[in-house]
Amino acid sequence: MREPREQKRLPHVVILGAGFGGLTAAQSLRRAPVRVTVVDRRNHHLFQPLLYQVAMAGLSPADIASPIRSVLRGQRNATVLLAEVTSIDLERRVLQLSDGTLEYDYLIYAPGTQNSYFGHDEWERFAPGLKSIEDAVEIRRRVLVAFERAERAIDDDERKRLLTFVVIGGGPTGVELAGAIAELSKTVLAREFRRTDPARTKVILIEAGPRILPSFDEELSLRAVDQLSDLGVDVRLGARVNAIDQDGVVIAQRAADGRAETERVEARTVLWGAGVAPTPLAKTLGVPLDRGGRVIVEPDLTLPGHREAFAIGDAVAFLHTPDGKPLPGVSPVAMQQARTVARSIVRAMHGEAHERFEYFDKGTMATIGRKRAIAQTGALRLTGFAAWLTWLVVHIWYLIGFRNRLAVMFGWAYSYFTYKRGARLITDHWKPPEEREAPQASVRAPIAGERPRASA
Amino acid sequence: MREPREQKRLPHVVILGAGFGGLTAAQSLRRAPVRVTVVDRRNHHLFQPLLYQVAMAGLSPADIASPIRSVLRGQRNATVLLAEVTSIDLERRVLQLSDGTLEYDYLIYAPGTQNSYFGHDEWERFAPGLKSIEDAVEIRRRVLVAFERAERAIDDDERKRLLTFVVIGGGPTGVELAGAIAELSKTVLAREFRRTDPARTKVILIEAGPRILPSFDEELSLRAVDQLSDLGVDVRLGARVNAIDQDGVVIAQRAADGRAETERVEARTVLWGAGVAPTPLAKTLGVPLDRGGRVIVEPDLTLPGHREAFAIGDAVAFLHTPDGKPLPGVSPVAMQQARTVARSIVRAMHGEAHERFEYFDKGTMATIGRKRAIAQTGALRLTGFAAWLTWLVVHIWYLIGFRNRLAVMFGWAYSYFTYKRGARLITDHWKPPEEREAPQASVRAPIAGERPRASA
Repeated sequence: MREPREQKRLPHVVILGAGFGGLTAAQSLRRAPVRVTVVDRRNHHLFQPLLYQVAMAGLSPADIASPIRSVLRGQRNATVLLAEVTSIDLERRVLQLSDGTLEYDYLIYAPGTQNSYFGHDEWERFAPGLKSIEDAVEIRRRVLVAFERAERAIDDDERKRLLTFVVIGGGPTGVELAGAIAELSKTVLAREFRRTDPARTKVILIEAGPRILPSFDEELSLRAVDQLSDLGVDVRLGARVNAIDQDGVVIAQRAADGRAETERVEARTVLWGAGVAPTPLAKTLGVPLDRGGRVIVEPDLTLPGHREAFAIGDAVAFLHTPDGKPLPGVSPVAMQQARTVARSIVRAMHGEAHERFEYFDKGTMATIGRKRAIAQTGALRLTGFAAWLTWLVVHIWYLIGFRNRLAVMFGWAYSYFTYKRGARLITDHWKPPEEREAPQASVRAPIAGERPRASA
Repeated sequence: MREPREQKRLPHVVILGAGFGGLTAAQSLRRAPVRVTVVDRRNHHLFQPLLYQVAMAGLSPADIASPIRSVLRGQRNATVLLAEVTSIDLERRVLQLSDGTLEYDYLIYAPGTQNSYFGHDEWERFAPGLKSIEDAVEIRRRVLVAFERAERAIDDDERKRLLTFVVIGGGPTGVELAGAIAELSKTVLAREFRRTDPARTKVILIEAGPRILPSFDEELSLRAVDQLSDLGVDVRLGARVNAIDQDGVVIAQRAADGRAETERVEARTVLWGAGVAPTPLAKTLGVPLDRGGRVIVEPDLTLPGHREAFAIGDAVAFLHTPDGKPLPGVSPVAMQQARTVARSIVRAMHGEAHERFEYFDKGTMATIGRKRAIAQTGALRLTGFAAWLTWLVVHIWYLIGFRNRLAVMFGWAYSYFTYKRGARLITDHWKPPEEREAPQASVRAPIAGERPRASA
């Protein structure tokens, strides 16, 4: 069956996933004599680094997401498939889709990761993570509704619960969310709500490890804590989450004397930034995975024993590093790997050897609310406004590069400099009539004639 | 109970609904010695005239919606309440909320309208209307998914169903949707899909009456049909819908010989632009309603027998017109009524008589896809590009006025002039894990190695 195909047609490169890695791979094969098929469950590529801005109503979903088709529209050797891949048969070189099959000559496996609750999947409904547009819009809805309900709460305890926000996980996502909520409450609440005192808002960031942003120098982690504290965020280090329910979380923390103390924090809004894991798809490959479930690849990014199957991005454990530690799950790694793989495929077609992957670390940065961030590159260390400005320029630069859309910069600058968040919409999913339920109670109308705080 | 309040406090004006009427009323009372409370079920005001652009992925929800709080943020005598009003007691001057009560001294009733299926509510799930952001996003999802699935359909009949779009109702909304879908398929399909031939897309506009856009001159209605036909839209006049299900619609039409013929149109996407009706709330007022369920108001826009209760907007039948016909349900009417009512309330506080409402008709316009529209004002009649340009300028002008946001103009110009629709996202509502279902089948992967149409 395969022989005639090989002869009469260009090799078929199937790219699984249209994240930074997958899309870059497709674009790097633009001029290669191959047919490229990009398969993704979503019709859009997401600019993940700014997803928290959607969750915090600073940007609209469309500002950070582009239909994959329009990104690749100009690339004639590329086809886009909206499909769910259920398993991969490396021997037969076939992807099993939920509704068909897809053969390949070369595979670029770049599915990315999903939220992981470390065996506590039941927590997800109470503490959504931040991986998709839907996640971001749901988080936006929960945070904004909490403020709205706090404005009308009768009961002081309930108002306290509504104004308490717990963010779990001290990585970049958790830090960005915690910082942004603190600012949202300071700015929006202060200016637009009449009865709620923004000073009452409480943001708690919970990190199980000894420090936040562990991928940075220890010194910068400490500075990040300072900057979060300036914003009023209560950072709890070495604190583990034992339970999450709709009324709050239970935290376990070691006391000075070493005894573990548990504390219950009452909060209506709990957000998950604690961890991600590769999709279950990895298990269907039948290749060795690391403890985190990531695919362990060869120095040339191929899967062991399959020279035509490559794996890139944060679903991969690349251990061939100077210190033997896996590379971080950041977009620069995925994009650099994508270019290496694209070159290797072309080389393979000419019977040449694959390229070994070498990662060039340009540095990392994390933002902490408006005008605050930390950044490190080479020997350089930045904090505060300088770091934030660098962060802003770099991100807008890449975002424009990938969207080439002025509106983003304007919407962005607009919400940053005016605080008026255009994307601050509370919307719900369209439901067929019979599924629509009445709005929740537990809040009240103001006592008739109650004087608004602000005009008092 | 009331006496002491009257003395020690400013009169309480409650505005029900934050549409064009309600918001304008609130803003017109900015300097009045009153306390204003705006009650709405949504946290955002919607720029309805451009809602179809969200449904057609030309704009993002946030481009045409603003949080009510931020619109009124600077107005210190105004408070915003996110609440559902369940009934109104005009005698006791109390609004019953789903979660409390709200007393008023003056009421401005401006709830607007909702989709109406003329007793066929079961049609809604198959043919969503276009009144809310959720509606628009759902329509966007259905249209885009139809294109995606058509690209992969095995069966020709199924592809035909997927590429057939039925729009019911020849009013402005129906015409805008039909025209926009025709263009979306011409532009987006043609450029980005590899296997689907855009020429196969079929858009059918169904109007029960003898002509579309009946609020315009007959001559302009005819021109509108011409312009729709240029876009490839099949306009059916005098056609009634007998049934709607997930596979299509049944249309009844009078043949030349007067016999009623029924025809079944197979279509996966059916949209409803056929009618709106006031919310059921009107019935709780206990005042006379017209056949359409609209509140019949006095010349001063008060409810009969209640000088402190005013009603404005498209939930109202204002019959005190030269020809005795009710005013159209358009934003200029609502906004002019709002200003009249605001003045009347201030006059009443000084013991003066209310103002009579006089409508000044600036003209009307409707757009028919890119570069096509019709407009009439006074004796002036415009069609084609001139009308479209007028329409564009007027709408952007008002949108900017109400949003004061450059990003809109850019996003707008961007999608109009590049055809790249940034908002073209297929997203779903965030669901708790157990409610997530697998993607639908009925589509297939391409036969391995199938040559993309465009590169053939």
